[in-house]
Amino acid sequence: MRIFGIDPGSHRTGYGCVERIGGRHALVICGSLAGPPRAPFPDRLNAIHDGLKALIVRHRPDCVAIEDIFHARNVRSALKLGEARGVALLAASEAGVPVVSYAPAAIKRAVVGYGRAEKHQVQRMVKLLLGLDRAPSPHDVADALAVAICHLQSSTGRLPDRTRADDARPQSALRSWRQYRP
Amino acid sequence: MRIFGIDPGSHRTGYGCVERIGGRHALVICGSLAGPPRAPFPDRLNAIHDGLKALIVRHRPDCVAIEDIFHARNVRSALKLGEARGVALLAASEAGVPVVSYAPAAIKRAVVGYGRAEKHQVQRMVKLLLGLDRAPSPHDVADALAVAICHLQSSTGRLPDRTRADDARPQSALRSWRQYRP
Repeated sequence: MRIFGIDPGSHRTGYGCVERIGGRHALVICGSLAGPPRAPFPDRLNAIHDGLKALIVRHRPDCVAIEDIFHARNVRSALKLGEARGVALLAASEAGVPVVSYAPAAIKRAVVGYGRAEKHQVQRMVKLLLGLDRAPSPHDVADALAVAICHLQSSTGRLPDRTRADDARPQSALRSWRQYRP
Repeated sequence: MRIFGIDPGSHRTGYGCVERIGGRHALVICGSLAGPPRAPFPDRLNAIHDGLKALIVRHRPDCVAIEDIFHARNVRSALKLGEARGVALLAASEAGVPVVSYAPAAIKRAVVGYGRAEKHQVQRMVKLLLGLDRAPSPHDVADALAVAICHLQSSTGRLPDRTRADDARPQSALRSWRQYRP
């Protein structure tokens, strides 16, 4: 099973493809996409869209996973985020790949075991889960891998119990995650 | 000069193409696009994107004009609006047509002469300006035509004075518009 995670952003969009081989998660590819910085905004969206579509077509995931957004600094930033998210959803649809989305807290619970985990905790756990030499950076890349891992775990029924994981402290979350590791 | 206006929406996206012939505005085409109602959201975005792109390529406007959003009911609706707006901007970029955007108040000032005009006033003035038999409906179509007209008027330097138009009452706005009519 192969999942392509996307963390959309109008400046930079992170992506990460993860697959389950046997009982383990393995990194296929990850990185980030950005349009030419001085190009008009529609052309930057175009570059992100084309990049994502080419990657999805090339790596043939079973599913695209993307974060659901409920909070933003303001309407303006929600709109910008939506614009990048729209072209990401479009790329998946054009490639004929179904899309699933997860709330930010569900992603953190699946990866760190704690729904209010900090970004650096997500990075560290993504590194551990995928057996990487170093934490994926910048945050967009780690977040894209995290949503892909979240879907892999959810589709094996290995998601941590919501209530308990949210009550847990970050330190104990590492333990609570271990029992859900495939 | 031919302008293609878009009023993006995730359920229904209005479009309207207007051109200036001599000193008058004329309707080229208008309508609205929606994806199959029961299709997954990315596929509905895909249908809107494909429809817009085909229309822009076919009608070869000099410019795509789109409303700038500053307010939304909440983050969720701003995000949905952004997703539709993102695929509209992408369609313009893929067709190689530049995009301009206008604040809602600027569009209403250009069309009705009053920055806080109601939707039905915009519909009525679009009907008058384009010499149509009836007001374009639904609102999405009138709004798409309005942003196209706004850009046509702004590029002839015929935009109403901002401060005065905003202070004006809707009734007097009709008069203040007349002097700007090409």
